[in-house]
Amino acid sequence: MTATNDRTDLLNALPLRDDLRGKTPYGAPQLDVAVTLNTNENTHPVPDDVQAAIVQEVSRAAAGLNRYPDREFTVLREELAQYLGHGLTAENIWAANGSNEILQQLMQAFGGPGRSVLSFVPTYSMYPILSAGTNTAFIPGQRARDFTLPPESAAEQVREHQPSIVILCSPNNPTGTALDDEVVDAVYQASEASNSIVVVDEAYAEFSRNPAATAIRLLDGRPRLVVSRTMSKAFALAGARIGYFAAAPQIADAVRLVRLPYHLSAVSQATALAALRHRTALLADVESIKMQRDRIVDDLKRMGLGPSESDSNFVFFGGAFDARALWEYLLERGVLIRDVGIDGHLRVTAGTEEETTAFLEGVESYLESAAAPPA
Amino acid sequence: MTATNDRTDLLNALPLRDDLRGKTPYGAPQLDVAVTLNTNENTHPVPDDVQAAIVQEVSRAAAGLNRYPDREFTVLREELAQYLGHGLTAENIWAANGSNEILQQLMQAFGGPGRSVLSFVPTYSMYPILSAGTNTAFIPGQRARDFTLPPESAAEQVREHQPSIVILCSPNNPTGTALDDEVVDAVYQASEASNSIVVVDEAYAEFSRNPAATAIRLLDGRPRLVVSRTMSKAFALAGARIGYFAAAPQIADAVRLVRLPYHLSAVSQATALAALRHRTALLADVESIKMQRDRIVDDLKRMGLGPSESDSNFVFFGGAFDARALWEYLLERGVLIRDVGIDGHLRVTAGTEEETTAFLEGVESYLESAAAPPA
Repeated sequence: MTATNDRTDLLNALPLRDDLRGKTPYGAPQLDVAVTLNTNENTHPVPDDVQAAIVQEVSRAAAGLNRYPDREFTVLREELAQYLGHGLTAENIWAANGSNEILQQLMQAFGGPGRSVLSFVPTYSMYPILSAGTNTAFIPGQRARDFTLPPESAAEQVREHQPSIVILCSPNNPTGTALDDEVVDAVYQASEASNSIVVVDEAYAEFSRNPAATAIRLLDGRPRLVVSRTMSKAFALAGARIGYFAAAPQIADAVRLVRLPYHLSAVSQATALAALRHRTALLADVESIKMQRDRIVDDLKRMGLGPSESDSNFVFFGGAFDARALWEYLLERGVLIRDVGIDGHLRVTAGTEEETTAFLEGVESYLESAAAPPA
Repeated sequence: MTATNDRTDLLNALPLRDDLRGKTPYGAPQLDVAVTLNTNENTHPVPDDVQAAIVQEVSRAAAGLNRYPDREFTVLREELAQYLGHGLTAENIWAANGSNEILQQLMQAFGGPGRSVLSFVPTYSMYPILSAGTNTAFIPGQRARDFTLPPESAAEQVREHQPSIVILCSPNNPTGTALDDEVVDAVYQASEASNSIVVVDEAYAEFSRNPAATAIRLLDGRPRLVVSRTMSKAFALAGARIGYFAAAPQIADAVRLVRLPYHLSAVSQATALAALRHRTALLADVESIKMQRDRIVDDLKRMGLGPSESDSNFVFFGGAFDARALWEYLLERGVLIRDVGIDGHLRVTAGTEEETTAFLEGVESYLESAAAPPA
């Protein structure tokens, strides 16, 4: 018996919840590789002057670290509202340790035993895990064969399942494409009867081909609509774990009933504030990432592969190749991308120009070697 | 109808979980008062050189903030193990955003629908709230009339209720007294049949009259025992939100199945590491806080009140006084203490010498004015 099996036996001897038995922890491999394009991080480091601003703001917070942080993180909520615009105020905003915690809090408030979350697969693989963690049933809704989500189909599935919560990932992870207003509106109307919370997860919104077309424009008059965002992607702050949402003030009131008091540390609040105040510098790389993203789509098409249209900082692609073999071939060349578990498809993050070149050259080289007869 | 009532109506129109309806968010008032002794913070600011070390470590982390943090926070776990001693290694350690998140993760893994948490009231008021947030039934176990917990009584209640999780708060909040090994051992033995997880919450352990008597000594051979700690109190880092536990490695494996990936930010990891490496300077104030704590106990006794023996940085006291009136009298003098909702009792944090003096003079002055006939 190996050490790992021993450890599994020891785990199984504990009173673990039955539905967790046999599961493995979520998470992409954290490998030490030259070109890391597997977790949709922003591969551009935070600019030096923004790093300095963050350090300065944390330095200010350090003087009061013996005290609990502002439980309502009021200044941060004010500045997030100002960033989002559309007439939002601090009352409309809530923040947490990453958008995962945002979604967990929403499920704690509106989900739970006897309740359900509907989302449309393939989509962000944390949704079923967050559902399990909050004892909420996860309903895997269906997309069209090309992974798009027609409004009438989405609405019909909402009417059929009457979920407590619907999550629309837009742009969708892993397929990359944003949803039209029509889908959000159709789902919202269809969920009137079930009084469902409708969450639009806009983690990648800033990379959209039309970033102005955010669901935030739809909040007015839709008290069950929540738009979640993150600073992990466009703001290049995956390490800082800052997610937030915009919604009617009573949605934030609901989350206040389940949030851990002081969940957002003074250091996190300071980091987020400094980043927001230097957003022009931080967001400057978004345009170059979008260029690399479009370059990946164009080049993969040229190579005869089938990339989805992307509104995010990553590209989902399929085609006549062995996905596992290509993934391994790239890893051997020091390029780590993501096998999202969908047959014949892979996902790659748009990196810097050099990183993107390394990926594209790797794919081209693989396709040539795979096409050649064995030596 | 007031604006607040409007907002409540709007909240009630949402599909909030039924058991959350009518509840109010947890949290002591965050008032701007000269002497704040209501939340058991360490009232001594982090020393300047430790602030500088924290800022330097955050500055190092800022260069990589575009990347997700180490999901396993391995270096932090190694150094926490080293701090705790007793032969622990990184495999025995887990950390999260405050010990509230530690407890929430344990309840997500071992609690949930159809399962229960037993604790002995009065105790930390977050336990029932965390239970509700994870859909775990909370069983309020009983203490003796003097708020102590006899081992045979604790064991008997465990055998009766067969809970999934037992939480022993030691030193207990709000009463301040630490438990003997006998209680932990009796509860552990009594929970053999129900295969319960036994959590000893040692948030205040460093302030104990005998800090060496930690339940960490009892971990060896007890795979269902968990000892939780925090850096919020003795380490003066309430604002940084760092809690952790020590236990058998398979307990950490269980929590890995429910933790949010990357839940501990790179900035939090950096802050905790810097603080741990400068713990001699940080913990230097613990002795002076214990002196003020003992002074409060002695002086309140001298005034004829009944303080509990305290192993923490706070004192729980009762006596022949109007608790609400004393609380208000102190607040008028700029001293904020805690009404923990137990008839005829209040709780005060041991502050600096000056803060403690302000509290004690306030109590003395109140008792004199209350004893005097009305003018």
